[in-house]
Amino acid sequence: MSLIESFERSRLAAGAGELWRHGISASFLDAVGDGSLPAEAFHRWLVQDYLFVVGFTRFLAVAASRTPRPAQSAMIGGLAALDAELGWFEGHAAARGLDLDAEPHPTCRRYVDFLVAAAYTEPVEVLLAILYGVEVAYTVAWGRLEPRGPYAEFIERWTSPEFQQYVAELLRLADAHPHPGQQAAFDEVMRHEREFWRMTWEG
Amino acid sequence: MSLIESFERSRLAAGAGELWRHGISASFLDAVGDGSLPAEAFHRWLVQDYLFVVGFTRFLAVAASRTPRPAQSAMIGGLAALDAELGWFEGHAAARGLDLDAEPHPTCRRYVDFLVAAAYTEPVEVLLAILYGVEVAYTVAWGRLEPRGPYAEFIERWTSPEFQQYVAELLRLADAHPHPGQQAAFDEVMRHEREFWRMTWEG
Amino acid sequence: MSLIESFERSRLAAGAGELWRHGISASFLDAVGDGSLPAEAFHRWLVQDYLFVVGFTRFLAVAASRTPRPAQSAMIGGLAALDAELGWFEGHAAARGLDLDAEPHPTCRRYVDFLVAAAYTEPVEVLLAILYGVEVAYTVAWGRLEPRGPYAEFIERWTSPEFQQYVAELLRLADAHPHPGQQAAFDEVMRHEREFWRMTWEG
Amino acid sequence: MSLIESFERSRLAAGAGELWRHGISASFLDAVGDGSLPAEAFHRWLVQDYLFVVGFTRFLAVAASRTPRPAQSAMIGGLAALDAELGWFEGHAAARGLDLDAEPHPTCRRYVDFLVAAAYTEPVEVLLAILYGVEVAYTVAWGRLEPRGPYAEFIERWTSPEFQQYVAELLRLADAHPHPGQQAAFDEVMRHEREFWRMTWEG
Repeated sequence: MSLIESFERSRLAAGAGELWRHGISASFLDAVGDGSLPAEAFHRWLVQDYLFVVGFTRFLAVAASRTPRPAQSAMIGGLAALDAELGWFEGHAAARGLDLDAEPHPTCRRYVDFLVAAAYTEPVEVLLAILYGVEVAYTVAWGRLEPRGPYAEFIERWTSPEFQQYVAELLRLADAHPHPGQQAAFDEVMRHEREFWRMTWEG
Repeated sequence: MSLIESFERSRLAAGAGELWRHGISASFLDAVGDGSLPAEAFHRWLVQDYLFVVGFTRFLAVAASRTPRPAQSAMIGGLAALDAELGWFEGHAAARGLDLDAEPHPTCRRYVDFLVAAAYTEPVEVLLAILYGVEVAYTVAWGRLEPRGPYAEFIERWTSPEFQQYVAELLRLADAHPHPGQQAAFDEVMRHEREFWRMTWEG
Repeated sequence: MSLIESFERSRLAAGAGELWRHGISASFLDAVGDGSLPAEAFHRWLVQDYLFVVGFTRFLAVAASRTPRPAQSAMIGGLAALDAELGWFEGHAAARGLDLDAEPHPTCRRYVDFLVAAAYTEPVEVLLAILYGVEVAYTVAWGRLEPRGPYAEFIERWTSPEFQQYVAELLRLADAHPHPGQQAAFDEVMRHEREFWRMTWEG
Repeated sequence: MSLIESFERSRLAAGAGELWRHGISASFLDAVGDGSLPAEAFHRWLVQDYLFVVGFTRFLAVAASRTPRPAQSAMIGGLAALDAELGWFEGHAAARGLDLDAEPHPTCRRYVDFLVAAAYTEPVEVLLAILYGVEVAYTVAWGRLEPRGPYAEFIERWTSPEFQQYVAELLRLADAHPHPGQQAAFDEVMRHEREFWRMTWEG
């Protein structure tokens, strides 16, 4: 069984049912895959995803502050990866002349509000489910595309073996620390993922 | 001017006056340097410093969550170093049969209380001064010793060029974001450092 | 000029433009006013508004923890009023056999996520704008109805002189502590108000 | 059995042993009782206790934000009492020409650091033990004095039936939500109480 298959069959993804399927497929991604994506939509995604990662970094830092070792170590590793990712986004934005000092779209803001509110108020076990949800949705959603065409670098980023190993570690942690609130939080991640993809496509 | 000299002459160290000198010298360190340190004191330091770093990691994660880039990047780098340091402590404790699941000494607890309370309530500029204070005190205090004798590995850890470069970056950040509350917070770090060293020596 | 008029003309309400008008009018309220509201919708509102106030109390407690006197005193007074309001809701729910231990509707959850995330991360001045926004929307929205019919007690609650005086104090505080981020936060309150009313009406 | 006796025999007070006895008796209080207290010590206490209550209010607001009903209601009632107490302190300070915009003494600061760090990081059950500890220490310590002499108003404040009923409610809540971490936190409150009294007496 590949890692992607283990993600698809994981307790939380299976439990989310239709919400899971909606969270990992999007017209935006289809258009990335067949090369038909309008530049405007790509630029919107790039700016809003950067703003999302800024908020996600805040979530993960607060979560790491509340989580004991050894799960904390995985979170700190994740923070270093997000920090590098923000630099990578900044390079792509500069190359395209995009202004990252933009307002978050209401859809982006609500996703970040959910993450930040959870980071401060939910049990650590629920934070592990949220963290797994955000990352697994990305690796599976991008993993359905062939890494070719004008966006190959982006497709490869979230389908690399290193990233998949990180997601597998998050799955292991979420499963090792079960909690009755995990499924509802994972489901809410999927709702936000779906709406985020819709926003990148429709504006 | 060496980095150590630039630390000694930095605005915050100079402003702390006698508190700075008390924060970076200790009978404990003198005994590390001349090889006369009782094993009991070393073990007490090792356990309590581990518990301190657990709390310091919490401080730094909350601080990173509240700090915008690029200062946030330095903090995330610091978190990765602390995470590695905790593993290093765990190895040393295991080799000596020490139990790290111990109660923090009241002196350790108060230092951590100060850091955690500040992380949630002080302005980011003040957090930068605290972060610089904690790290500069360690590199200067250990840097006064020759890296030899039974504790050479420990002396080398906080006097390595990499660690000094990190402290130099923290100094640059603290100076680039001045705030009227920085000196009082830096001074409080030095008071806690002095009391921590006294506790490791006297019990 | 009545207090209600001073609210309508306040800097933040005027600055929100159409969002303000959408935040204070709703098919749900029209149906309360003419007595045509289906019991199902009223029950949905009662349960979800209770869950909202639970989250709003959390927001206000965190905000009060971060706010110096004398604005803190107004917030603590507001907390006491919310505490009493929760008891009042519990009485109405018990009388109608409604279960308050329900799941928040996604729309309710997002409003609370916004409040809680803001409480921990936004400047105090912005929290004052949010607090004013939540309360002024309620007193103006309910204030457009005549206090009669089956829901007279509910209409009277948020149109009482005491409540209007409290809202006037919040307006004074928000205006006395201006901040560039206030309008965007106030606008976001109005978006959430509109969506909350839509949810109570449509399910 | 009087309420004071029930406090003296409560699980947490009995469990603290000598720390409890040290937390509720002080040379400062003896001198209040026999009228021999120097004005300088009284003024120091008045200013530092005000600054302590400012920090204690922050603790209680964060604790209330994290605590579900009905314990939350008792905390909100406590916040309203602290808010009134701060106004009362301000009146006494103004009447004596004392500046409340002073630096906290290091001893006061460490007590507040402990409370604020706990508010953000300890389980709610532990916060209930801390809250009971702070309040019971005051009502028992002042309750050992006769309400007469120049400080009668101060003695009466913390020995009133209303305040004792509030402390009895806090005892009930702490006992209704037991937790293995309660005793260590209660003990730490007593250490801070002892050091606070020593500071008011010795400077």
